[in-house]
Amino acid sequence: MPTQFDPPSGTRDFLAAEYEKREWAFGVLRTVFARYGFEPLQTPAFERIDVLLGKYGEEAEKLVFKILRRGEHEASGEADLALRYDLTVPLARVAAAYGSQLPMPYKRYAIGSVWRADRPGKGRFREFVQCDLDTLGTTSPLADAEALCAHHDAMVELGLPDFTILLNSRKALTGLLEVFAIPPELGPGVLISVDKLDKLSPAKVVAELVERGLAAGTADELVTTMTAQDAVERFKTALKPSEIGSAGVDEVEHLLALVGDQIPPERIAFTPRMVRGLSYYTGPIWELAAAGVPGSVGSGGRYDHLIAQLGGPDLPATGSSLGIERVLMMLSGDTGTQRGRLDVAVVVLGQDLAASAFGFAAAARSGGLRASVYLGSSGKLSKQLRWASDSGARWCVIYGSAERDAGVVTVRDLAAAEQETVPAGDLAGYLAAKAGSGNA
Amino acid sequence: MPTQFDPPSGTRDFLAAEYEKREWAFGVLRTVFARYGFEPLQTPAFERIDVLLGKYGEEAEKLVFKILRRGEHEASGEADLALRYDLTVPLARVAAAYGSQLPMPYKRYAIGSVWRADRPGKGRFREFVQCDLDTLGTTSPLADAEALCAHHDAMVELGLPDFTILLNSRKALTGLLEVFAIPPELGPGVLISVDKLDKLSPAKVVAELVERGLAAGTADELVTTMTAQDAVERFKTALKPSEIGSAGVDEVEHLLALVGDQIPPERIAFTPRMVRGLSYYTGPIWELAAAGVPGSVGSGGRYDHLIAQLGGPDLPATGSSLGIERVLMMLSGDTGTQRGRLDVAVVVLGQDLAASAFGFAAAARSGGLRASVYLGSSGKLSKQLRWASDSGARWCVIYGSAERDAGVVTVRDLAAAEQETVPAGDLAGYLAAKAGSGNA
Repeated sequence: MPTQFDPPSGTRDFLAAEYEKREWAFGVLRTVFARYGFEPLQTPAFERIDVLLGKYGEEAEKLVFKILRRGEHEASGEADLALRYDLTVPLARVAAAYGSQLPMPYKRYAIGSVWRADRPGKGRFREFVQCDLDTLGTTSPLADAEALCAHHDAMVELGLPDFTILLNSRKALTGLLEVFAIPPELGPGVLISVDKLDKLSPAKVVAELVERGLAAGTADELVTTMTAQDAVERFKTALKPSEIGSAGVDEVEHLLALVGDQIPPERIAFTPRMVRGLSYYTGPIWELAAAGVPGSVGSGGRYDHLIAQLGGPDLPATGSSLGIERVLMMLSGDTGTQRGRLDVAVVVLGQDLAASAFGFAAAARSGGLRASVYLGSSGKLSKQLRWASDSGARWCVIYGSAERDAGVVTVRDLAAAEQETVPAGDLAGYLAAKAGSGNA
Repeated sequence: MPTQFDPPSGTRDFLAAEYEKREWAFGVLRTVFARYGFEPLQTPAFERIDVLLGKYGEEAEKLVFKILRRGEHEASGEADLALRYDLTVPLARVAAAYGSQLPMPYKRYAIGSVWRADRPGKGRFREFVQCDLDTLGTTSPLADAEALCAHHDAMVELGLPDFTILLNSRKALTGLLEVFAIPPELGPGVLISVDKLDKLSPAKVVAELVERGLAAGTADELVTTMTAQDAVERFKTALKPSEIGSAGVDEVEHLLALVGDQIPPERIAFTPRMVRGLSYYTGPIWELAAAGVPGSVGSGGRYDHLIAQLGGPDLPATGSSLGIERVLMMLSGDTGTQRGRLDVAVVVLGQDLAASAFGFAAAARSGGLRASVYLGSSGKLSKQLRWASDSGARWCVIYGSAERDAGVVTVRDLAAAEQETVPAGDLAGYLAAKAGSGNA
């Protein structure tokens, strides 16, 4: 295709099949989330620029799409609006704006496009959908458990049960830094290195930790505590002297107990080496790993101070985000797509019969079937039948002068390669019965 | 609310009820359009700026939201992308880009946000949804008829049957200018004045026409031909000498005949005074007028050269656009919204019982009900019951130490103000039966 007709770099056009697959998946997610009592929220595509900036860090802000001021101000080259970069900053704004109008705790989900001027690549887009569920206003571990279970159920109902939830606790990791006597200024860097254990070998991570200033013995023991065969036991034992570390272990075990009846044990595991890179988490953290997919297909955790940091009210919060673009790529190509564009294709042999043919399509639609009359200029049966076949229709209604004279239509079953003659007035009932009998 | 937390001027946050109403309406539209064999299309929120500019005219282009170049180019103050202004220019781009991959004729619908930096006002937004259906690649009047019928069915299925479709023909109007010997250079202006007949009195329109240079007698006769009690007959008679005018009358009458069985006669009328302002129409034109709503709630027509003018291939086209934001305002407040956030609210009297309570919510969900456990910090029954009631739940499951000791739960029907004791293990079946028996 000539590139001047491509969609802009990093964006996509969704034609019918892809659109239907995506809408099907979003529909599944809406149903699952509603079942947990999460309610939908949709915010504008853009926010005032001061709402967005100063929230994501300098590197991320380079990726924000900024909108030029309009009218006489356009020449200033200044921006006053920007496309949303995620769904969390708008959530913080909404929590601040609507306060007491919102139910408390406020359980909301959002499925919507966000825009980032990232370098486009395989599976990386500049316009992509995020899918978040969050609960604001409660510190209850039940809220963490709900987020986990809803996320779990969503994957299962999308037909993707082959995944594992890696569970850990930010408190436990803080405790780990404490018991290993890591100087506070090295803490964040140490966690960033340890977070690479899913990509790098333990030896390489140890080397990175030594480079960051840890003693070789400390680095080695730290990594072994997180990655050994019996890492969970080592981790728990190591954390015993730390109050916050023990609290972290307790919160993970409590959460595992809460979800124990809803999430099968093979799909969830206490995973000491799982460190979410983002520093805003304050409690349990989790990541979804799917078989055969590099990186995670979702993640979440408790973040009790972030909403206030983002300009919202000071509300504790927990939430989970599904990497829906990755998840969509895991779905087979025809998931959720309609079979063909039509159920019934009406071919018409003679211009003067068009009005009647149009009525036959309407008769089919009255039974809920998707139907259309041939709109091309050819009067040839063979050409019209090709159109009918290309449309994916199961039934082809044929109407020519012979049918008109006899007061009938010919209905061809394109799958069974059979045809029957049906009184014109009975067509609606005939097609509805055929479709209802499971032949659709 | 403090204005700094408002959404940007002219945009809206959609909280649960409004979101659900909108999604319900969009779902109805998708179903109706699919039934006619229209397939969905979704294009990116922004286009390359050269795709958008030069298409809408100078005044309209001032309303385009332009996106600043990024990185080192940001300082240039230049824009390289812009938010889409309508759904037709992206359609033209898609027709050019995918050509033979698209079924021909290409029948597509699109329901998506567009952005215009208009002055916000009552019912006028800077971010609003457009809902278009178009057929590219056929000159068949059956395609015009399909667009009309699909538009008609959409309104009926939204529960808004109280509307009229005003039908006319651009060819007939061209013929009218011809038979009244209006100089070509005055033609567009005359049509603009005549288009005001739905707002201004005939006398005022006559005055405007005289101001534009028409003789008083001509202006008067022209307006009378379009507005008299017997305007249709006068119009038809006047157009007889004009070839294009007669063709216009014929196409309107043919279209009326085609849709005659599907659109009740009280909902559609040949309306000589109905002039769509836009000059790109080439054949039949229509407008939907709804009782009690100023202006139109939808419009459409045939536009055989526009796709090429917009940079697409030279394809004949016809389509109809629903003024969905107006239509949404016509729907009553609770249309399509869920009754409450929850079906089942689980209250729990004791921290140690939380895990069991969480399981009861899961049991309710297993039957497809929306259920949640109380997430707040209060252990008081009264406070938790208030939460249950606020959530809109029909049933409240109560679990305390007495229930635990007896191996039961108390299920209160909040609508009937009755309660029963149910063995804990039977809860899922009990609730599913209650919900299934029409009590939900």
